Amino acid sequence: MSAVTPGPATHDRPVDPSGAAVDVVGIGNALVDVLSHEDDELVERLGVPKGGMTLIDEDRAIELYRLMGPAVEMSGGSAANTIVGVASFGGRARYLGKVRDDQLGKVFAHDIRATGVRYDTALTADGPSTGCCLILVTPDAQRTMNTFLGASVHFNATDVDPELVAAGSVLYLEGYLFDPPEAQEAFRVAAHYAHDAGRVVSATLSDSFCVERHRDAFLDLVEHHVDLVFANEAEIKALYRTDDFAVAAQGVRRHGAIAALTRSERGSVVVTEDEIIEVPAHPVDELVDTTGAGDLYASGFLYGFSRGMDLATCGALGSLAAAEVISHLGARPATDLATLAAPLLGR
Amino acid sequence: MSAVTPGPATHDRPVDPSGAAVDVVGIGNALVDVLSHEDDELVERLGVPKGGMTLIDEDRAIELYRLMGPAVEMSGGSAANTIVGVASFGGRARYLGKVRDDQLGKVFAHDIRATGVRYDTALTADGPSTGCCLILVTPDAQRTMNTFLGASVHFNATDVDPELVAAGSVLYLEGYLFDPPEAQEAFRVAAHYAHDAGRVVSATLSDSFCVERHRDAFLDLVEHHVDLVFANEAEIKALYRTDDFAVAAQGVRRHGAIAALTRSERGSVVVTEDEIIEVPAHPVDELVDTTGAGDLYASGFLYGFSRGMDLATCGALGSLAAAEVISHLGARPATDLATLAAPLLGR
Repeated sequence: MSAVTPGPATHDRPVDPSGAAVDVVGIGNALVDVLSHEDDELVERLGVPKGGMTLIDEDRAIELYRLMGPAVEMSGGSAANTIVGVASFGGRARYLGKVRDDQLGKVFAHDIRATGVRYDTALTADGPSTGCCLILVTPDAQRTMNTFLGASVHFNATDVDPELVAAGSVLYLEGYLFDPPEAQEAFRVAAHYAHDAGRVVSATLSDSFCVERHRDAFLDLVEHHVDLVFANEAEIKALYRTDDFAVAAQGVRRHGAIAALTRSERGSVVVTEDEIIEVPAHPVDELVDTTGAGDLYASGFLYGFSRGMDLATCGALGSLAAAEVISHLGARPATDLATLAAPLLGR
Repeated sequence: MSAVTPGPATHDRPVDPSGAAVDVVGIGNALVDVLSHEDDELVERLGVPKGGMTLIDEDRAIELYRLMGPAVEMSGGSAANTIVGVASFGGRARYLGKVRDDQLGKVFAHDIRATGVRYDTALTADGPSTGCCLILVTPDAQRTMNTFLGASVHFNATDVDPELVAAGSVLYLEGYLFDPPEAQEAFRVAAHYAHDAGRVVSATLSDSFCVERHRDAFLDLVEHHVDLVFANEAEIKALYRTDDFAVAAQGVRRHGAIAALTRSERGSVVVTEDEIIEVPAHPVDELVDTTGAGDLYASGFLYGFSRGMDLATCGALGSLAAAEVISHLGARPATDLATLAAPLLGR
């Protein structure tokens, strides 16, 4: 592993960072988060899996919102959070994802652009309203998500500009894109464009229930189309249908992809064909809300990876960003990550 | 001062708490806050008074929003924040104020109802969108507000139900209501209904620039129509055109109204015809954002006042609520105020 190449060129695809105008291009479901502090009792009463993500329709969203306490609205969306994190580290970042031209859509577009991310996807003038994620944060700081995809279901392959994808050293795709049917196709098309341009394709498995819903497609991706995969313990176990983390980690190694596997307070494990790197978690003063932990881990890792840092440093940057985001409410960094990372990077 | 009457009956108007189904009825401009952390440089560049509230039109709101960093959306509105605080103390509270039936209007209605406040004002189906307050929070925790009144300008006297006003021990009106022309009339009508029912009328002067804009009307109010007035040092000085706080405090005493005058970290002074009560500030671990400090002081004071507590306790409850709200981002309590107040109230 050299510290000057932009991460290892996996699947024998060379990466040429000199031609990349952007570090990371992310594609995902564009959502506004609606966060409230709730008791476990509400999560139980709703019958949704605690810590997971449940897809809901608009009627259910209205019903659930009525049951929620006073909330805070903040831009979200898994890959969008990651891309904002990349920009906060000082990375050059772009995002693709669909919102409507309503108030929350304008909030989403404002917030992502205000962080320095380039975001050009056209807002839709009709159809469902901007998607939202109703997030119940319980006293244990765990988040339980209920997503109304809204306008994000209209994101499709025609929204993916080949030149834009080719402009990024690394393409980053969220597994949640497998929920809206047309976005699945956009996912595959974008991966194809990136590989054609010699770029790295990365993806996150997003959620163990999402893996269950789309397991065959995810296996195909990891085995044939993705160079760098992010997953937490539950997700990688779901992918390989095993209760044994070591078995799951071996599974992903066989396919030549790099895997960054997060394990909450136990840090993460970066697995390649040749090595296994244990990365400790970054200390947290007070755990407030785990929303965005995986998204921000990916942002640190991707920033380092796109800049050619070694995998241990990529993992450490991931831990740093995850620790920042879980120390406050909301899934986007509240502190400049470049400043936080400066000591770690010797800057 | 008795501890069993609901605050002193001022201006010789008796108060009958036994007939009141509600502790406090509040009327104000219904707004959603858009808060972002900004440098002083942006405030200077905008040329708006730091720490004050500037009225802006929709074009200016769009322009200013574009200059702001990533933001958080939370329900706001001065009197609405106060009323939510009263409910958080365990008080029975109602609110009147106008939003549109757009996404932010639904957010406003959801959040206030979710705290237990009764809110029945009809959402408008057309006209300007829900009002918003663009709040720049600078590193010194000071907030600078830029308000697009939006739908709140449509609140008028016909929205004020005499029975609803009569149902509350105390009516609470924000001075900002003097900015939308029709709301001024609603202010006067509501005060009239409350007095006819033998209730206490309270109001806040809101902002020193607001006092400057409507000084004669405010003087008339304090001298003839309001039994309990809330103001900070700058506001009461602006009302009496003096640089001397003691002179300003004497001014308000002459008219028989009770005045609760807040002085930031120096606490507050409660002034009546007969006495002057100094109330210390409540300690704060970390000052994060002063948005809502005055609003929440009023909530604690009003809760105590409507329940017949002595003025020193009313002031202490105000200090407690203000300390809570300035220790985090946003203008509404993040902690149950009844729980926080229990030791102070011997519960």
